[in-house]
Amino acid sequence: MTVAAILKHKGYEVASVRPADTVEAVVQVLTARSIGAVVLLDAAGGLLGILSERDIVRALAANGAGALEMTAGQLMTRALKTATPRTTVGEAMTMMTEGRFRHLPVLENDTMVGLVSIGDVVRAKILQQEAEVDGLRAYVTGSG
Amino acid sequence: MTVAAILKHKGYEVASVRPADTVEAVVQVLTARSIGAVVLLDAAGGLLGILSERDIVRALAANGAGALEMTAGQLMTRALKTATPRTTVGEAMTMMTEGRFRHLPVLENDTMVGLVSIGDVVRAKILQQEAEVDGLRAYVTGSG
Repeated sequence: MTVAAILKHKGYEVASVRPADTVEAVVQVLTARSIGAVVLLDAAGGLLGILSERDIVRALAANGAGALEMTAGQLMTRALKTATPRTTVGEAMTMMTEGRFRHLPVLENDTMVGLVSIGDVVRAKILQQEAEVDGLRAYVTGSG
Repeated sequence: MTVAAILKHKGYEVASVRPADTVEAVVQVLTARSIGAVVLLDAAGGLLGILSERDIVRALAANGAGALEMTAGQLMTRALKTATPRTTVGEAMTMMTEGRFRHLPVLENDTMVGLVSIGDVVRAKILQQEAEVDGLRAYVTGSG
């Protein structure tokens, strides 16, 4: 199973903000859409980075109320790791657990085509393993 | 596999705050310990609820900088669902995906003995399924 299958089920829309948007604006986007992270895009639509709930909590701890006036560009995590639609679910899971991040941008020819979360990847992996277990059980039963 | 096995690996320590602690104090605890949620305990050590990164971001969206002066007690989610050490990994995963929450308190005789996250549960489930697949593969190979 690949990232393309996850996006087909989840959809291709990704909540994005601009680097100059304030944290005050970003928390409105996260809350209105019930999501945990947004991507930052440049004027041409290129991916700059990711800003998550965790980044915001860290900024509050370091800067208090001043964090709300900081910009998304100041607090974002640069997206060093990205996937393509052909990345397998297992590869995506390894990237996220090894890199300790929870959101993986999906790019096709440098264009954002989606964002998968660790929850998305894990659900897909479990479905895949359940199917494999079912297949092997059927084989074992059939050959017994 | 049960929740007890997860806690044995992860440890039994749970970061806790009191209901009167401010969000300003809670973000320091979350950041210092690199965690996503704390539990709220009463004076007798009884579980009152959970406060997560998401709850804090929602409060910022609703109240701006004023959220930092709010108390953990005001923003917590009452912990309606809890597990025991004997809860299976599959049961814990179903509770969390159906209830859409990411942290499950573990109680033994009304005393907190741990906190498992959706990440913990999912990693355990995957290990369990990989072991089952390996077992079935060995059986299929042995019987082929």
